[in-house]
Amino acid sequence: MSFAIEPVADAVFAARVQRAIDRKTKPPGALGRLEALMLQLALIQRRERPALHEPQLVVFAADHGVAAQGVSAYRREVTAQMVRNMLAGGAAVSVLARQMDLRLTVVDCGVDGDFDPHPQLVDAKVCRGTSDFMAAPALTGAQCRQAIDAGEALVRRLPGNALLLGEMGIGNSTAAAALMARLTGYPVPACVGRGTGVDDAGLARKRAAVERALARHAEAREPLAALAALGGAEIAAMTGAVLAAAAARRVVVVDGFIATAAVAVAAGVAPEVLPYCVFSHASAETGHARWLERLRVRPLLDLDLRLGEGSGAALAWPLLVAACRLLDEMASFESAGVADRAR
Amino acid sequence: MSFAIEPVADAVFAARVQRAIDRKTKPPGALGRLEALMLQLALIQRRERPALHEPQLVVFAADHGVAAQGVSAYRREVTAQMVRNMLAGGAAVSVLARQMDLRLTVVDCGVDGDFDPHPQLVDAKVCRGTSDFMAAPALTGAQCRQAIDAGEALVRRLPGNALLLGEMGIGNSTAAAALMARLTGYPVPACVGRGTGVDDAGLARKRAAVERALARHAEAREPLAALAALGGAEIAAMTGAVLAAAAARRVVVVDGFIATAAVAVAAGVAPEVLPYCVFSHASAETGHARWLERLRVRPLLDLDLRLGEGSGAALAWPLLVAACRLLDEMASFESAGVADRAR
Repeated sequence: MSFAIEPVADAVFAARVQRAIDRKTKPPGALGRLEALMLQLALIQRRERPALHEPQLVVFAADHGVAAQGVSAYRREVTAQMVRNMLAGGAAVSVLARQMDLRLTVVDCGVDGDFDPHPQLVDAKVCRGTSDFMAAPALTGAQCRQAIDAGEALVRRLPGNALLLGEMGIGNSTAAAALMARLTGYPVPACVGRGTGVDDAGLARKRAAVERALARHAEAREPLAALAALGGAEIAAMTGAVLAAAAARRVVVVDGFIATAAVAVAAGVAPEVLPYCVFSHASAETGHARWLERLRVRPLLDLDLRLGEGSGAALAWPLLVAACRLLDEMASFESAGVADRAR
Repeated sequence: MSFAIEPVADAVFAARVQRAIDRKTKPPGALGRLEALMLQLALIQRRERPALHEPQLVVFAADHGVAAQGVSAYRREVTAQMVRNMLAGGAAVSVLARQMDLRLTVVDCGVDGDFDPHPQLVDAKVCRGTSDFMAAPALTGAQCRQAIDAGEALVRRLPGNALLLGEMGIGNSTAAAALMARLTGYPVPACVGRGTGVDDAGLARKRAAVERALARHAEAREPLAALAALGGAEIAAMTGAVLAAAAARRVVVVDGFIATAAVAVAAGVAPEVLPYCVFSHASAETGHARWLERLRVRPLLDLDLRLGEGSGAALAWPLLVAACRLLDEMASFESAGVADRAR
């Protein structure tokens, strides 16, 4: 795996885009964070008028051995059931993808279940759920590499210039919390939240599981080693997808806590990926806001979402479209004959 | 003027909607603030599956006598120029209305300028700019009533079941700040911000103007009296529009600081309007966040916008559509065959 990811920074070009933004018929800065988004999208595409086409919302699904430890409010089979629900059009992400005109693909990275063929389903199964990371590495090195490669290959195959990340996997907020603790060094209670809504006893089990896993895999400190030992097949595939998308200069729209785990691993491998990422929302999940701060990024939305599936990424999508359209379609003071402020 | 606004609260119906939300294939509460929005929209429409149709984005435009005091970074003629820009399709709100499929109407409530007829322009001019409120009431009682009636009549004429509020008026953040200070009792510095971006000297002039106006119109304490003395024609028309929309059980999507002033006046007249209002965003304008807190409402977005025009309302619109579609289209645990958590 070798990703040649170009840095997006280009001070001369950025200044030119900023001048175009400032000539639009509005007070300087009045579109707030949309203006920063305009600049980011222009830099990613190296175009003064960036445009988004054929956006792909990809849901990476897998099961987790640690789910057997009672760390989730839901049973393991819900992962496979929700994959079917997504494909049937009944999940939240199915509805939002229809609303926002996003093409939805579900990738079976390691679900403990079998699926009928479906035009929106990609089979990239590397396991039937990970091993319980309290006892063994979640993924072998080979499985982890295979999942990363699958995510990378998928993105290369998909058309369009924007990737929206989603995921599904009972137990995966436990894996993401373990990765957060390992990659940031933050204490476990700051990283472990209630996920889909475990009760206090479940939360205690979840914290204990993460503590045990961190001790068991004390040597797994490099991002990819941590990913294999503590992560999951969907997180690994997302990591590969993020790296491939950035290498192709595509916009990556990051969903919540678990998607952030994949981005953090990818950024650990190649810090240049971060400027390709738009962080869609701050999840209500414990740890997410702090992890985003640590990555020095600011999410667009703050709606107390904690569903995953790519729901936050889909909800933020119209803001990216707006940024492009405003930059392309708004009149300038000159073209509209509007008097600029006296300077 | 008498508005029969029905309270939206209905505990039995709300419990039924909440049960429907909780049966959707997601952990309880996982869609965060969208779930509260689902419930609000259902209550407004008194339908278990609310639906939005023919949304109307109305920009209320007017000039302000106080603009002559150097309280804005822009000259007075910019109001008329921006009205023309909106109608020509080059303003931010024009672009966003196109993107979001919102029908855009611009209402001349009191612009100091003349316009060619345009299918999206409504003439409801009650003055050519208000009087300078440091010297006289901004509007006479008759003008204020006329503007309120015009806003009300306009909404009755428009189709659809959602009204998105926008405004344009050089100087109108000064008027809105004066209304905030009067209606909330908060000190002037907490109410007065930089609007379109005045410098420190302009900010000082703006504060002084508001202080003078408050002293000059010390008797104007009731909401409608304050509206006439301190407000403006577009704020008065918006007030009438909000009251009429709530009376027709329509959703009102509130934009920023100036739209909030109109809602605050309307709520002073009829507190039942507030549950019909969805607050789209917290503006970067000083005072807005605090005013929203005072009204005990929470905005959806926080993007440092400070443009007005209805831009924030338009940007939040997809969230309302999502709330309706999720409630309508998401599968339930039963219909999708997904195992709910053990309880």
